[in-house]
Amino acid sequence: MEQTVFTAPADFCPDFSKSGGLIAAVAQDARTGEILMLAWMNKEAWELTLRTGEAHYWSRSRKTLWHKGESSGNVQKVLAVRLDCDSDAVVLEIEQVGGAACHTGRESCFFRRLTRQSRQAEICSRQVFDPAAVYKK
Amino acid sequence: MEQTVFTAPADFCPDFSKSGGLIAAVAQDARTGEILMLAWMNKEAWELTLRTGEAHYWSRSRKTLWHKGESSGNVQKVLAVRLDCDSDAVVLEIEQVGGAACHTGRESCFFRRLTRQSRQAEICSRQVFDPAAVYKK
Repeated sequence: MEQTVFTAPADFCPDFSKSGGLIAAVAQDARTGEILMLAWMNKEAWELTLRTGEAHYWSRSRKTLWHKGESSGNVQKVLAVRLDCDSDAVVLEIEQVGGAACHTGRESCFFRRLTRQSRQAEICSRQVFDPAAVYKK
Repeated sequence: MEQTVFTAPADFCPDFSKSGGLIAAVAQDARTGEILMLAWMNKEAWELTLRTGEAHYWSRSRKTLWHKGESSGNVQKVLAVRLDCDSDAVVLEIEQVGGAACHTGRESCFFRRLTRQSRQAEICSRQVFDPAAVYKK
């Protein structure tokens, strides 16, 4: 029998009938609770994530399956998966290899932050790597 | 001049050109970092959220603007807003009045959790209220 990292019971299955077969997936740092990114999964991406224990998404812009970190080596090791009440969104509790989830090299894609007190957005997530060096051709 | 809770600079604006004019919005507990829910916003919901400081969403099932907590009183006070790198998703750092974001009465909509070690999902978010009592006709 094939080895699988997560063994999901039958009732722990997202509903892929909305949004053109996609669900929203939020990657959260398992240690700090920081929200790192939001991406999309089709059924195949979900199944590959469970099987391999590494986050797979569906790239809406490239219209292709996307093993996060496949080019940079900065994969996301999934420690736990959470499903929401109406089963059309998931949270992945992850360990981000390399320390940055964003293609800009920042820890989180949500690096611009506006508070009630400010008229300017602040940068709230640190720069971990130089994207020009990591994503070289 | 009309009072507005958040004053967003011109470059702090989501891109509403994808997903049929909708962006994904993740509500996160500002104090604990817990992810409470994921919902959708159209431009009007976004603007109302900034103006009022309370989370407004677009209900895809009811096809209507949705002031979260309008029926139960359990509104979401937004303390900060975060925008992602490609501007099609936001994080709302909120204070959840009543303590529960989910219509089931649980603190978080993401209350089912599967780990690598388990073959059963665990319930990972506490029951705060009885939905039958809160959403009475």
